[in-house]
Amino acid sequence: MSYSIVERGSRFTMDYRVFFTDSQQNVISPFHDIPLYPSSSDQSVCNMVVEIPRWSNAKMEISTQEKMNPIKQDVKKEKPRFVKNVFPHHGYIWNYGAFPQTYEDPKITTPDTGCKGDSDPLDVCEIGYKVHPRGSVIQVKILGTLALIDEGETDWKILAIDVTDPLAEKLNDIEDIDKHMPGFLKATVEWFKIYKMPDGKPENTFAFDGEAKNKEYALKVVEECSKQWKDLIGKNVECDSIKCENTTVAGSPYKIENQEANACVENHPALQEAEVLGPEVDKWYYAILPPVEGSLTTPLSTGFKVKSRSSPWFPRSKQDGDEFWQKDFFIMV
Amino acid sequence: MSYSIVERGSRFTMDYRVFFTDSQQNVISPFHDIPLYPSSSDQSVCNMVVEIPRWSNAKMEISTQEKMNPIKQDVKKEKPRFVKNVFPHHGYIWNYGAFPQTYEDPKITTPDTGCKGDSDPLDVCEIGYKVHPRGSVIQVKILGTLALIDEGETDWKILAIDVTDPLAEKLNDIEDIDKHMPGFLKATVEWFKIYKMPDGKPENTFAFDGEAKNKEYALKVVEECSKQWKDLIGKNVECDSIKCENTTVAGSPYKIENQEANACVENHPALQEAEVLGPEVDKWYYAILPPVEGSLTTPLSTGFKVKSRSSPWFPRSKQDGDEFWQKDFFIMV
Repeated sequence: MSYSIVERGSRFTMDYRVFFTDSQQNVISPFHDIPLYPSSSDQSVCNMVVEIPRWSNAKMEISTQEKMNPIKQDVKKEKPRFVKNVFPHHGYIWNYGAFPQTYEDPKITTPDTGCKGDSDPLDVCEIGYKVHPRGSVIQVKILGTLALIDEGETDWKILAIDVTDPLAEKLNDIEDIDKHMPGFLKATVEWFKIYKMPDGKPENTFAFDGEAKNKEYALKVVEECSKQWKDLIGKNVECDSIKCENTTVAGSPYKIENQEANACVENHPALQEAEVLGPEVDKWYYAILPPVEGSLTTPLSTGFKVKSRSSPWFPRSKQDGDEFWQKDFFIMV
Repeated sequence: MSYSIVERGSRFTMDYRVFFTDSQQNVISPFHDIPLYPSSSDQSVCNMVVEIPRWSNAKMEISTQEKMNPIKQDVKKEKPRFVKNVFPHHGYIWNYGAFPQTYEDPKITTPDTGCKGDSDPLDVCEIGYKVHPRGSVIQVKILGTLALIDEGETDWKILAIDVTDPLAEKLNDIEDIDKHMPGFLKATVEWFKIYKMPDGKPENTFAFDGEAKNKEYALKVVEECSKQWKDLIGKNVECDSIKCENTTVAGSPYKIENQEANACVENHPALQEAEVLGPEVDKWYYAILPPVEGSLTTPLSTGFKVKSRSSPWFPRSKQDGDEFWQKDFFIMV
């Protein structure tokens, strides 16, 4: 099956939407109508829906709250949200997206993390060399996973690589990433820890002390989230505010006709010129971290673990006279 | 004076050109006709011509070899040249460009470096937060300089910041960069050292052991290169293959009429759609460096200084079984 997108509204505004269509140009849901596994014989390869191309920072995601689940831009303080660039990174450092037909149920506690799901499809970081456009549906090979704890919720990040990438055949498990892409896994952990800090939020934490789990573990996470989605789409659990309309899921009480699905697109304004962005979206923010090796004698008030702060990216410790663009991004040591 | 650009040909092809015009839409040379100093009373602020916007990697530069000196893309192996992305960086990490009315004379040896000039206008790295489009002419405040030695030639890189940047008033000399943008200066040195390595070239070296010189020193470099340009444009020295046609330089034997300058644009094909780029230009390349601290017992055959390899970006040393996308990028330790 090949998929296409239909864009509506004006990119980088609140009315922008990316709908998905099948090969007959009928509207489908990228959340519910794209199979998780392209082949039933190999559960280590999954379809992935690309929401945020590498090196971009507009926070676009599949809307679980809108019928047919188009991609839309997240909103913050009544404006389209852009994730801040934290030096030395530019935007997202992978193609970022979601696995279709997966769900992290907010009522279920993950035993290994002790936290509940975040009520979204499972997130994926695709680490291949190509930049994939928003709305692409690509096949990826699963390599491992990180367990981000986002404001008390489990938010798994699956690490995977495009099956067409030249490195795909050499990357078979989590430890292979550092062999072929030295520093990349460390940068990934660092990125997730700090990316909300320029907005004044605390450092994100991880379960397992930030250690990435291997492929076997990741496959179980995917399988579990597939199961939770099946319970959702089959109405074994309440959908709450999640929109479950779909056109292809056999037995789902939310299944609708193509005509009804297609009508959703027409409710949105036609595609227009993208909004011209101000220079602020390109700003680089900086972090100052405590000294790398053991010169701290008291615990940090912000709860940082000293061990986790020994970042390769920000080798410098705070000095008298330091000032920053954002006061609330000033890290006390 | 405000300047505009006129694009010709198809971007990312060999026939692409960016010509410059003055406020009367007459063609000028960005090399010779834009004054170096916007105000004669303050030599620490210069005009800068932006050739490569931050986070891009098409190697565009003012052509010294073509009449009216349009920007064109550098050519490598008969193809337009793209600089490789070396992890964790995306493209150039500053707005990169040149100071007009400056020249590094290849016949003159710089006493402090012992090397001759590279026969180009002086290069500038603008470190402000805005991404400036190719062909912009902006005013920048000079902060310091690095003395890159490129294949035996002196190739000064002036560090400067857009005068309209909110940080400009806080950055007054080289040491202020690390206060407000921790890690950035170190990343800059690292970037220049390694950026040609994915193409199989050795690490670049710097005079002064990679230490950045301060503002006072940088101002002298600019002044010296201004003088060398004056000798060039006044024909006190031979121009060799450098095209010195200009429309504004009083007393220059190369001064021509607007009509002749304007005709240069017409010799190039009209602006067309940009070439669609393959995914290769987005590839990320990785370096593996020797251990940071003194475990090397013999000199490196490639001539690397151990001290200079203690990069914060690539904290990992070589391990058995390491392989890379480019064999010639494999650094032996």
